[in-house]
Amino acid sequence: MSEPTMGRFEGKTHILPVRVYYEDTDVSGIVYHANYLRFLERGRSEALRLAGVHHMVMMSGEEPVAWTIRRIEIDYARPAKLDDALEVHTRYRVLAGARLNGEQWVKRNGEDLVTAKIEAALITMSGRPRRIPEQVRAKIAQYLD
Amino acid sequence: MSEPTMGRFEGKTHILPVRVYYEDTDVSGIVYHANYLRFLERGRSEALRLAGVHHMVMMSGEEPVAWTIRRIEIDYARPAKLDDALEVHTRYRVLAGARLNGEQWVKRNGEDLVTAKIEAALITMSGRPRRIPEQVRAKIAQYLD
Amino acid sequence: MSEPTMGRFEGKTHILPVRVYYEDTDVSGIVYHANYLRFLERGRSEALRLAGVHHMVMMSGEEPVAWTIRRIEIDYARPAKLDDALEVHTRYRVLAGARLNGEQWVKRNGEDLVTAKIEAALITMSGRPRRIPEQVRAKIAQYLD
Amino acid sequence: MSEPTMGRFEGKTHILPVRVYYEDTDVSGIVYHANYLRFLERGRSEALRLAGVHHMVMMSGEEPVAWTIRRIEIDYARPAKLDDALEVHTRYRVLAGARLNGEQWVKRNGEDLVTAKIEAALITMSGRPRRIPEQVRAKIAQYLD
Repeated sequence: MSEPTMGRFEGKTHILPVRVYYEDTDVSGIVYHANYLRFLERGRSEALRLAGVHHMVMMSGEEPVAWTIRRIEIDYARPAKLDDALEVHTRYRVLAGARLNGEQWVKRNGEDLVTAKIEAALITMSGRPRRIPEQVRAKIAQYLD
Repeated sequence: MSEPTMGRFEGKTHILPVRVYYEDTDVSGIVYHANYLRFLERGRSEALRLAGVHHMVMMSGEEPVAWTIRRIEIDYARPAKLDDALEVHTRYRVLAGARLNGEQWVKRNGEDLVTAKIEAALITMSGRPRRIPEQVRAKIAQYLD
Repeated sequence: MSEPTMGRFEGKTHILPVRVYYEDTDVSGIVYHANYLRFLERGRSEALRLAGVHHMVMMSGEEPVAWTIRRIEIDYARPAKLDDALEVHTRYRVLAGARLNGEQWVKRNGEDLVTAKIEAALITMSGRPRRIPEQVRAKIAQYLD
Repeated sequence: MSEPTMGRFEGKTHILPVRVYYEDTDVSGIVYHANYLRFLERGRSEALRLAGVHHMVMMSGEEPVAWTIRRIEIDYARPAKLDDALEVHTRYRVLAGARLNGEQWVKRNGEDLVTAKIEAALITMSGRPRRIPEQVRAKIAQYLD
């Protein structure tokens, strides 16, 4: 069995290759705008996984906690098309309390298609923010930029 | 505040109007095949809601139980396009133990586009089948065909 | 046959009721962040339709043109859950050349869950911006705020 | 730049590793049933690509043609969960005229989770079936089982 790719770090930037399929496109012939948010989430998840955080829902004491999104700013400069080989670049910037901020961009052949600023937070299943656990902070901290 | 539509029953067949948006289409200019499964789920959910089952995740004793899909047979006869006004027709056929079988079809202007046979089941969060609770059975039973 | 709802205008604000289904949720028990962008697109499309713009891909002279998204700022304040009855509110703000700006927010029982600023533009299938056609401008203009 | 994986063939079976992300799950904690159809499409696309068919929308003479789905039978035996490393297995069975039939299954650690029979066809943008072009037939034929 071969594992799905976790991408790679170049310095503190994580890079995940992503392919564009029919599922990602819309009638205008290009990637549907909301689907870049799915690509970005894949990038953030694999950045964490490669940094050693293997579970995207984790235990904080006896309680399960999950990542949620607080805010996104996203600029669409150029469209991606069916069959394109893209790269999702992820750079984590700030880790504070329950909060994790990052910058992400989607490239094709070295050209930026989409750029985004993301604020994520860790919350309980009832929606309350929870400080990111110490061992998770340590793993992310080594890639903070 | 106005509520989202729950559709209507004509005899034992539930009918839900659905609009096709960019999100539903793909590069070939028509509705992406997997997205009909989302339309069908909306139809099944509103059929249950209008029959009096208001919570799609419910309690069975002290345990939450959710609907899962066991099997689908789906035939795509004609494509739907952006802006189309569709109708999802749902007819429940068999209710037995944890299991609920139905037939569904998607129409546009009286013409069938897609037809499907669905087998759903009620399961616990750890994946074990659970007999459909008595008060839920009674509500569905009146629309069994 | 009954048509899917086009929502309604209250003054210059368009309001579309939307239901949360399994398809919209994720493992953390709430609506997946990217799926609000689908809700917002439904709101913008029905606002246009109710204003008299019936085709989301239209002809500009002899060429088909489609709406694309240039930029989104979105804030997630409170989560929506399975079975929730939501309202998507849409207010168009600026119409200039190929560009249409709007503000949107998602409410539940009078409370804001998500707020967004959106910049859309009309483009050809090869990606070039196209001035919004005169008869479309006139229809949107009456609801500009 | 590293390319997204195209998976590999083992004999005539194509195998594509796929990771489960938040986007794929629903409130019941498992992969939403319609999303397996997205995984299956990725498997079929990469099987074609690795066989030498690089464009999922292609020219047939002077006309663009795209793959469409005619029929799916899908059985859900066991659920997949967030962070799971899955494999999509694809075996093409029959290639006749416009039509391509295949069998697919999704595995985790050697265990089948989902099995499916798929009938695809090549159509023009106006929906008419088109005989699969000769050079494409030759590439698929070597992997027909």
